[in-house]
Amino acid sequence: MTSLRATIGLDIGGTKISGGVIDAKGVILAQSRRDTPAHDPAAIISEAANLTRELSAEHKIDAVGVACAAFIDRSGSTVYFSPNLAWRDEPLRERLEAALQLPVTIENDANAAAWGEFRFGAAVDAADMVMLTVGTGIGGGVVLDGVLLHGAFGVAAELGHMRVVPGGFRCGCGNRGCWEMYASGTALVREAQELVVSGSPLAARLGELCGGDPGALSGPDVTRAAVEGDPAAVELLADLGVWIGEGLASVAAILDPELIVLGGGVSEAGALLIDPAAGAFHRNLTGRGYRPEARFALASLGNDAGMIGAANLAAQVDG
Amino acid sequence: MTSLRATIGLDIGGTKISGGVIDAKGVILAQSRRDTPAHDPAAIISEAANLTRELSAEHKIDAVGVACAAFIDRSGSTVYFSPNLAWRDEPLRERLEAALQLPVTIENDANAAAWGEFRFGAAVDAADMVMLTVGTGIGGGVVLDGVLLHGAFGVAAELGHMRVVPGGFRCGCGNRGCWEMYASGTALVREAQELVVSGSPLAARLGELCGGDPGALSGPDVTRAAVEGDPAAVELLADLGVWIGEGLASVAAILDPELIVLGGGVSEAGALLIDPAAGAFHRNLTGRGYRPEARFALASLGNDAGMIGAANLAAQVDG
Amino acid sequence: MTSLRATIGLDIGGTKISGGVIDAKGVILAQSRRDTPAHDPAAIISEAANLTRELSAEHKIDAVGVACAAFIDRSGSTVYFSPNLAWRDEPLRERLEAALQLPVTIENDANAAAWGEFRFGAAVDAADMVMLTVGTGIGGGVVLDGVLLHGAFGVAAELGHMRVVPGGFRCGCGNRGCWEMYASGTALVREAQELVVSGSPLAARLGELCGGDPGALSGPDVTRAAVEGDPAAVELLADLGVWIGEGLASVAAILDPELIVLGGGVSEAGALLIDPAAGAFHRNLTGRGYRPEARFALASLGNDAGMIGAANLAAQVDG
Amino acid sequence: MTSLRATIGLDIGGTKISGGVIDAKGVILAQSRRDTPAHDPAAIISEAANLTRELSAEHKIDAVGVACAAFIDRSGSTVYFSPNLAWRDEPLRERLEAALQLPVTIENDANAAAWGEFRFGAAVDAADMVMLTVGTGIGGGVVLDGVLLHGAFGVAAELGHMRVVPGGFRCGCGNRGCWEMYASGTALVREAQELVVSGSPLAARLGELCGGDPGALSGPDVTRAAVEGDPAAVELLADLGVWIGEGLASVAAILDPELIVLGGGVSEAGALLIDPAAGAFHRNLTGRGYRPEARFALASLGNDAGMIGAANLAAQVDG
Repeated sequence: MTSLRATIGLDIGGTKISGGVIDAKGVILAQSRRDTPAHDPAAIISEAANLTRELSAEHKIDAVGVACAAFIDRSGSTVYFSPNLAWRDEPLRERLEAALQLPVTIENDANAAAWGEFRFGAAVDAADMVMLTVGTGIGGGVVLDGVLLHGAFGVAAELGHMRVVPGGFRCGCGNRGCWEMYASGTALVREAQELVVSGSPLAARLGELCGGDPGALSGPDVTRAAVEGDPAAVELLADLGVWIGEGLASVAAILDPELIVLGGGVSEAGALLIDPAAGAFHRNLTGRGYRPEARFALASLGNDAGMIGAANLAAQVDG
Repeated sequence: MTSLRATIGLDIGGTKISGGVIDAKGVILAQSRRDTPAHDPAAIISEAANLTRELSAEHKIDAVGVACAAFIDRSGSTVYFSPNLAWRDEPLRERLEAALQLPVTIENDANAAAWGEFRFGAAVDAADMVMLTVGTGIGGGVVLDGVLLHGAFGVAAELGHMRVVPGGFRCGCGNRGCWEMYASGTALVREAQELVVSGSPLAARLGELCGGDPGALSGPDVTRAAVEGDPAAVELLADLGVWIGEGLASVAAILDPELIVLGGGVSEAGALLIDPAAGAFHRNLTGRGYRPEARFALASLGNDAGMIGAANLAAQVDG
Repeated sequence: MTSLRATIGLDIGGTKISGGVIDAKGVILAQSRRDTPAHDPAAIISEAANLTRELSAEHKIDAVGVACAAFIDRSGSTVYFSPNLAWRDEPLRERLEAALQLPVTIENDANAAAWGEFRFGAAVDAADMVMLTVGTGIGGGVVLDGVLLHGAFGVAAELGHMRVVPGGFRCGCGNRGCWEMYASGTALVREAQELVVSGSPLAARLGELCGGDPGALSGPDVTRAAVEGDPAAVELLADLGVWIGEGLASVAAILDPELIVLGGGVSEAGALLIDPAAGAFHRNLTGRGYRPEARFALASLGNDAGMIGAANLAAQVDG
Repeated sequence: MTSLRATIGLDIGGTKISGGVIDAKGVILAQSRRDTPAHDPAAIISEAANLTRELSAEHKIDAVGVACAAFIDRSGSTVYFSPNLAWRDEPLRERLEAALQLPVTIENDANAAAWGEFRFGAAVDAADMVMLTVGTGIGGGVVLDGVLLHGAFGVAAELGHMRVVPGGFRCGCGNRGCWEMYASGTALVREAQELVVSGSPLAARLGELCGGDPGALSGPDVTRAAVEGDPAAVELLADLGVWIGEGLASVAAILDPELIVLGGGVSEAGALLIDPAAGAFHRNLTGRGYRPEARFALASLGNDAGMIGAANLAAQVDG
């Protein structure tokens, strides 16, 4: 066992629990992962404890930070609910502390990822930043003057649920027209599948990639086709980027960040996504031409952002 | 001259400059007002100085806080631009300090009003609040964990310029579909005038109030008719309230406040506006049913909120 | 004075009162007209009396039938209101009988026109018919199994106020999306003016007809251009016809007439209007292909339909 | 066998044939039911005859009235077509009279239900009424001045096929945007299933009721959840009520009834449906404020309305 002091970050997703030992500079000293027993809340805690024990073997651990896709109360104790993990009003921190025998900090996964990028990634030079994790949905995280935004009840920065189309598509939150129905990987796949179904000759390459079965077409398929130069896929990513940029102009009217970080699987399309997003942002920003404007950057920590951010938040609380 | 220490708050509007001597508890010790020479930036500063001298005669003044409808930089020095006051990249603080011979703090008027309500008005018990000043446009002010939100460039909380309808009405900011085109007094008047122009018998009372000239119909006319019970005016205010509540649900997805304060001229309609707004807010809030929800309140300081808030901000900087 | 027994029909419009002596076969024995003193309810009654006296000089008159653009109660006594004639809860029949010293029947003008066409015009062979008077607005009249439809409160057959577009254009009735905002002469002019304003080369002929001033373009201008063969005007009339036919398919789902009569100024476009209307009707009729369908006909009594219909209704009551 | 004179009413639905012996006051003296052999027109007639024989055993029967979901010609002889019963241009009355050896009257089921409510149910005090049977689709029945509306070809009162959204959802009739795609039990279930599929926590109770299988969710499930107080179900019924009320405002512009009766399975939600429907009706009625308005009532005869109405229609023809 080394004498290096560190914290563990756990990112509990719908299918995997990723864990890492992270030092004060955000360096991953060790990492591991396990399947998530998503429908059994007690088993999730057991697996988190097992993973923590494994990671603790070689390191002196001060605390554990847990990132998960959940609405968490302001005090960081209770999960109001989690769409994928079967928790309702769960006293998660208390249960984890009992199982892990370590101080635990719990945080919404998109917030943790934003914090990771803010401390050690694409946003180290910014004080006010918005991070958008564009995957199946849109995850949002906001840092204002160096402080992670939680809101009065702990559920701020749910950026994907800003309404952008009155009476629009039904969202997983139950409402209609939420931004994440237009600016997420799910939207990208829906539009791409619709294009294939239409039988348009434009969709030839996308049709090949899914073997003629539109239902099998995935977001990575579209990104791959776009990177290869398929014009339809490039257009689909540009359309997605425009929705992202337009929504961010609304977010900026409220928060006025200096930096916007795009992460999540869809951001792997790089300039194919970020350029149209930045263009639409500029075109829709209120006061443009008479005020400084936020920069755009791609996330730099990839899938580890949540784990690293959660570990650092735990270190702060512990310190 | 008394020995009471106090600050002056000036609210520079498009037609009037209101000034007051405000003590540390938000009490107005003296007040006065002058016309705004809106098209002459230098004359505005002279009038502000004259008003400050008048108010200083009987009180010991430590500093002056100035609220104005303007985009102001993060440092509180420079006005990027002001829609009504002919300022572009104006070093307003420096010029005012030279003219007034006192420390000066400048603040966006809606922010100042929010701060006034937060310190001395409807939001004294809240730590996280959003204030909406619904007048000709929508002014927004946000307090997060006791701190007034400014954003990286000083222009946060421009809530009225969140886009709510893609391709919607053209806004005074140059974009389309901004919230303030649907949820402001301007929207109320537009809808009411359209109803009168239509010649509908429903609009009979509204038609009387404007002497048959739809262009003469004002927001206060509609509010007055609604308070008297005119069904068309009640409907128009309810429609406005629904737009306000729907937009606030988006704002709450981002900021998660505990309290929402409605102020500005239109808020004088009271329950006729706030009840439909609160209903639509609840109906559109993401996660409703699984999370605590913000309360609604009417502003309590009226037109003095900006002046009081600016004076208090000046006291904080000075102190 | 002849011994021929007859009734008088008066059609009180916003600008003219037309009167005629009508025999039992619908023949006009004499006629005259006067200006309507529209803003003075008492003067309207005086003028109606004067016109009645003039027409009575040479004929034995049994009764008077009055058609006017008004919501009239089921008993045919009281005008609830009239958009153009300044009546509100007016005991019109009683006042007219006092002034005219004859039995009086009052009827909505579009109903009277439908009855005129039903008894003596385009619908003499039908038992169930719908008449649409397409002018500035849409007037509707319905005959079911030989009986003129009045409804429980006297205000049935207000066909133009069926809603066809949720949240659509504001109507003169105060609501939004009423059929007459899409299928009337007002709609035709709005669309034509918009085309001229657009500066499209398509609008060249229409632009000439209004001397380059779109605001001066009228419905008759569009009809004239269409009759001359101007493709844009033909399209505009066809668009209007489609709205008419689509709405009539909804009306037919409710009333299932055997005959639909189109009258009013716009119907002067003849086949240019009725053919697209009939096509759209067929395309949108529920059950088409499995049921008989209504025929279309143009009105045959022109502007006299209301006067003739009102006179005949008076004869029926009197007889 | 008693000497009481009576008629039989048969309601032939897609799954069941309900039959009853009904006296002149609408009292059910006896009743029975059988399965409908829906795909075999001849077998349907045999079963109807068997059921008639069974019901005739103890009663003196003068005539039989048959209600079925079908487009029937004006003379009441021929079924143009029936969506569920495999009839096309079927001389149904003649075949039934041959099989039953009694005078037969056939009537559209929604018309029969309206007549039942008019004679013996919720509308006994009204002369002009509209009944909406809100089940899988919308069935309409209209009584004007005491006469059941049939239209020129027998297919009037197909209220559900009034178009309310241009280019809207495709209807079972082949057209788009029909009212019954927005204001029926099918619409309620579609919206509820969509909410469950979305995975929203709002849909928790609805998800339980269908055992997690959105496709299994039924209209009665939603009504049950709403009656128990589930907020999402209450909202879904309110949305449905608004569509019902808005459409009825269009129907009232045409027919101007004094009473609107809501029946069918969905109407079991009672005030949860009828209150929002009445509110939206009032808000969208043309001329509101200047004219009397129709009342709303819930149907009182339940599923027996069609059978009772058909029996009474047969008694009238026979008498």
